[in-house]
Amino acid sequence: MAIAEATRARAVSPSRGQLIPISAQDVRITGGFWAGRQKANAEATLRHCLDWMERLGWIANFDRAAAGAEGPSAGREFADSETYKLLEALAWESSRSADPWVDEAYRTLAARVVAAQQADGYLNTRFGGPGQPARYSDLEWGHELYCAGHMIQAAVARARTLGPDKLVEAAIRLADHICEAFGPEGIQSVCGHPEVEPALVELYRVTGHRRYLDQARLFIERRGRASLSEIEFGAAYFQDDIPVRDATVLRGHAVRALYLAAGAVDLAVESADDALLAAVQRQWENTVGRRTYITGGMGSRHEGESFGDDFELPSDRAYSETCAGVGSLMLSWRLLLADGNPKYADLMERTLYNVIATSPDAAGTAFFYVNPLQRNTPGVEPETDAASLRAASSQRAPWFEVSCCPTNVARTLASLGGYLATVSPEGLQLHQYADSEIETTLPDGQPVHLRVQTEYPNDGLISVTVGADSAEPWVLSLRVPEWARGIAVLVDGDNRSVVYGSTATVTRAFAAGDTIRLELPTSPRVSFPDSRIDALRGTIAIEAGPLVMCAESVDLPVGTELADIRVPGHARPSPSGHDGASINAVYEQTPAAPWPYIPAKTEVTRNGADLNLVPYYRWAERGPSTMRVWLPLAEAEWRKRGTDE
Amino acid sequence: MAIAEATRARAVSPSRGQLIPISAQDVRITGGFWAGRQKANAEATLRHCLDWMERLGWIANFDRAAAGAEGPSAGREFADSETYKLLEALAWESSRSADPWVDEAYRTLAARVVAAQQADGYLNTRFGGPGQPARYSDLEWGHELYCAGHMIQAAVARARTLGPDKLVEAAIRLADHICEAFGPEGIQSVCGHPEVEPALVELYRVTGHRRYLDQARLFIERRGRASLSEIEFGAAYFQDDIPVRDATVLRGHAVRALYLAAGAVDLAVESADDALLAAVQRQWENTVGRRTYITGGMGSRHEGESFGDDFELPSDRAYSETCAGVGSLMLSWRLLLADGNPKYADLMERTLYNVIATSPDAAGTAFFYVNPLQRNTPGVEPETDAASLRAASSQRAPWFEVSCCPTNVARTLASLGGYLATVSPEGLQLHQYADSEIETTLPDGQPVHLRVQTEYPNDGLISVTVGADSAEPWVLSLRVPEWARGIAVLVDGDNRSVVYGSTATVTRAFAAGDTIRLELPTSPRVSFPDSRIDALRGTIAIEAGPLVMCAESVDLPVGTELADIRVPGHARPSPSGHDGASINAVYEQTPAAPWPYIPAKTEVTRNGADLNLVPYYRWAERGPSTMRVWLPLAEAEWRKRGTDE
Repeated sequence: MAIAEATRARAVSPSRGQLIPISAQDVRITGGFWAGRQKANAEATLRHCLDWMERLGWIANFDRAAAGAEGPSAGREFADSETYKLLEALAWESSRSADPWVDEAYRTLAARVVAAQQADGYLNTRFGGPGQPARYSDLEWGHELYCAGHMIQAAVARARTLGPDKLVEAAIRLADHICEAFGPEGIQSVCGHPEVEPALVELYRVTGHRRYLDQARLFIERRGRASLSEIEFGAAYFQDDIPVRDATVLRGHAVRALYLAAGAVDLAVESADDALLAAVQRQWENTVGRRTYITGGMGSRHEGESFGDDFELPSDRAYSETCAGVGSLMLSWRLLLADGNPKYADLMERTLYNVIATSPDAAGTAFFYVNPLQRNTPGVEPETDAASLRAASSQRAPWFEVSCCPTNVARTLASLGGYLATVSPEGLQLHQYADSEIETTLPDGQPVHLRVQTEYPNDGLISVTVGADSAEPWVLSLRVPEWARGIAVLVDGDNRSVVYGSTATVTRAFAAGDTIRLELPTSPRVSFPDSRIDALRGTIAIEAGPLVMCAESVDLPVGTELADIRVPGHARPSPSGHDGASINAVYEQTPAAPWPYIPAKTEVTRNGADLNLVPYYRWAERGPSTMRVWLPLAEAEWRKRGTDE
Repeated sequence: MAIAEATRARAVSPSRGQLIPISAQDVRITGGFWAGRQKANAEATLRHCLDWMERLGWIANFDRAAAGAEGPSAGREFADSETYKLLEALAWESSRSADPWVDEAYRTLAARVVAAQQADGYLNTRFGGPGQPARYSDLEWGHELYCAGHMIQAAVARARTLGPDKLVEAAIRLADHICEAFGPEGIQSVCGHPEVEPALVELYRVTGHRRYLDQARLFIERRGRASLSEIEFGAAYFQDDIPVRDATVLRGHAVRALYLAAGAVDLAVESADDALLAAVQRQWENTVGRRTYITGGMGSRHEGESFGDDFELPSDRAYSETCAGVGSLMLSWRLLLADGNPKYADLMERTLYNVIATSPDAAGTAFFYVNPLQRNTPGVEPETDAASLRAASSQRAPWFEVSCCPTNVARTLASLGGYLATVSPEGLQLHQYADSEIETTLPDGQPVHLRVQTEYPNDGLISVTVGADSAEPWVLSLRVPEWARGIAVLVDGDNRSVVYGSTATVTRAFAAGDTIRLELPTSPRVSFPDSRIDALRGTIAIEAGPLVMCAESVDLPVGTELADIRVPGHARPSPSGHDGASINAVYEQTPAAPWPYIPAKTEVTRNGADLNLVPYYRWAERGPSTMRVWLPLAEAEWRKRGTDE
């Protein structure tokens, strides 16, 4: 099988679109924020995931299936997918580093998976074997096609990095089996958890086999027509309530909704289906404008791990699952490639720093599954030798009974280089800023070599040095985040210009050594919530560059509680320490009341003190704490107007 | 078996306590708010419940068990309890009315239940039969003792109204079986859903058999010691996290927590266990001060139908299950009897008008399961011929797959007379106001006859006329709700006095025709939330007497939405129409924004208009609507201070 050179190591590889992804192998993150994350991922997270899955028998499930063992498999119904996501992470990592452990781990694991495949291509350790439920007997909850989708994605990553192998061949057999089983003459339904849809389109891109694209279209067009049975969460839970092209906003289970939307963009792009693309763009806009947290997090409800209504965005009960952050990146990246609008990269940046980076600890061996914007109780340290419940603790946990997040973070970090920049006939676009080297080729064949130097996000200076002369002029485009517009400054030699738009561009035939500098303002700033968000009325948040800040009880004076903190309306935050901020605050102590709904304002005791803030991604690093992103304004200031006038 | 005359028709019958309940048969609700509810219950709800349970096969489960039929039963694992709660409602109704249908329905149903009992006293249609799971093989979720508890409560109601029968005998056999199976030498665990605890104490009160009290003590002392297996919701879900006497607040599944606390009060009272009583009093205080909605509703989370953290009280996601309202009445009534503090009756009044009365429609054939304080989307009419999901609609539904609420409302309304008044050595206490006649006896043997005339809660005038001369002086005590203190007026002949305390009392040897009048202020008033409730910051609620008011979109001018309503801080509500209110409001239209977290206040368009309010219990009577209890203050008033100073 020939894998086109053009698709090598691209995270996603559409055949059409405004922007063209470059290979993750063309980008080397050399230092700073993301280099540390990639290092922990490579050196700790991958082994950590492998160890836990061996220990819990999730990988042995494949050996048992290969041996035709009787009865139920270990773990939950989606356990196979964790092995696949780890394989995908290992495949990406193999193209990033030369660690022989990575290669060996990949090959051993892939062989065990391939051995479990049935003769007709079917592959799942929980269904269809002796003493197991029949294949496709539980489409609502069985996750068979979901698992298959992740298997195919692992194979796609392999095909695009070190090239085709037995896992890729197995994925093709699996995809062929799915096309038989669910094709025009097959089962007229879909999987309760979308994922096979983008996977099939990506496999089409790798192989050129059109039947995979056609099958993805069948799955996407079938959804929203009640082909799945009724469940207590309602059909919106798995997006079976409204056809994809008729929906106006994402709803139901957040990860399901985002994976499905990503698949719909893939299908729309490969089919030149502009109406479908426009439908997903509209869904993205309404979701980002009304159903997304300031962190970029998605999913307002624990019940059903789902989106809520418009403007239903409670901080304390925010679910904001790490995997929904991954799904959001998948969707926004595809839309960015399709239409080139920097707003998609803006949301990706917000999500990378405040959801993806929040989940793992610095060591890469403990994770947040949910990412609420507030903790009212400090919680307790999770057990380190037992899998935790998904949302039970305020602390990162080593593993979960439903452990989708660690491997999802792992595959994202391993492929991160592929998301920093794109090319187009005009030139090269830098979307995310990391200390890095980029060595790639423009569509016209011109080689480009860039050295990006920055301590972003702790500092807003981004310096881009061109490594070689260009024969022809091209456009270097630098994204200016929404919060920096009108204050960002582009420096090109002696020229300094304020940037008002969403990109700063320099067009010329660059000479080796040319340096372009972008200055983004990263001092702490105040943000206000839309007045329709009930949960945030009367509060403010502090942001600094792309980082959302939070207050933690560990930083409070003894005897005070986070629930008593109020911020005077005139207070302005200032930078503090390495990457923190500080704001003038008031500690209001309200007397205990037998009934919390009272006819007039209560008398409170007030003491002023500075409140320290740290980046949200660092919260809970110092042990159990209560935490708040949104800080209430001093109540007296506005309630007084309410009652005394 | 002798049933002591003293316990006849009492809803609960403690042997100790500050106040003594009177028989429900001594109270006749003659008109007004609750008379209408009792009439709908008697004439429609009881038949409605019976019809649905026949149709779904829940009652036939007993016939199948009696016949030794193979395999699973219809409905969910707690379906038996619905038949028992209906039996309890029929038993209470039989003492209130002389409808032969009620008597016949009770006897037919009781016979079918009794026939299903096993020779050793065990009774459950889902466990222990051929092809069914073994008895007590799933204490976490099986609900066997929970169902048994409701069976015993039905028998207690029968014993106290028309007297012992075969159902009462069966309940005694069932209780004896439970004492064998779970006694000191038996299974050392508890049921995942408390309910058998208060039932056993009540059966002890009926029979005098001490082993039932001892068994209740075993169950209550065992809980909180992790005798149940771990579940994803955590041990707090079924209160197995902390021993009852060590807990400081109610937590976990709200109905479970409230039923358990009610049983603990029963045990404490009968055992003279003041430490246990004090523990539950403390739990009540912390729960009411920090975890209760303004409606009296309890349960802030859909996930686990549970209490949230302190001050976690979102309006839109309020669960506030109708059954938690019933559980709250059970608990507060027991505490009122134990220590006589009117605060318990205050909460009962709030819960009766704003939770219990909200659930059924006026016809008594459709019900709310959850009672949120806000609906952001109007929802759709539920199907009338299919059981609804618990929380899926903004409209009352005829039945639910988990249909605990309709029968719980039915048994509460049928026994409501028993909750209006108590006696004590000092005299008689009126706790709840309804147009009624009360004919009872004081502990010293003096007969008392009172005629209460009122249109409460639509009007605050309560007139109490004594029907016969008293030989000795006694104290007539009238509860003054917390919101009326300092403005309520007691009128005794020519004497008018403002009442500052929680009761208005008149002490004398009353003469026939003496009339005492209490004037409670029921004009609409403004209430403010505790500043620690994030979900309510910057909002106000309107209350009128014991009624919480709400705004519904059906009352808005065309083209406006409830989400756009703001109330100026200086606005004051005024009465409107029969039982509504009106307040000056502003409609703010915020322009659509691509991102809802912005660096400064937005410009909005404002139009003023009066906003109509209706009592919350009447919401959704006029079809699908959006709804709000808490109204945001006009934002400009306070945000301006925040940003412009």
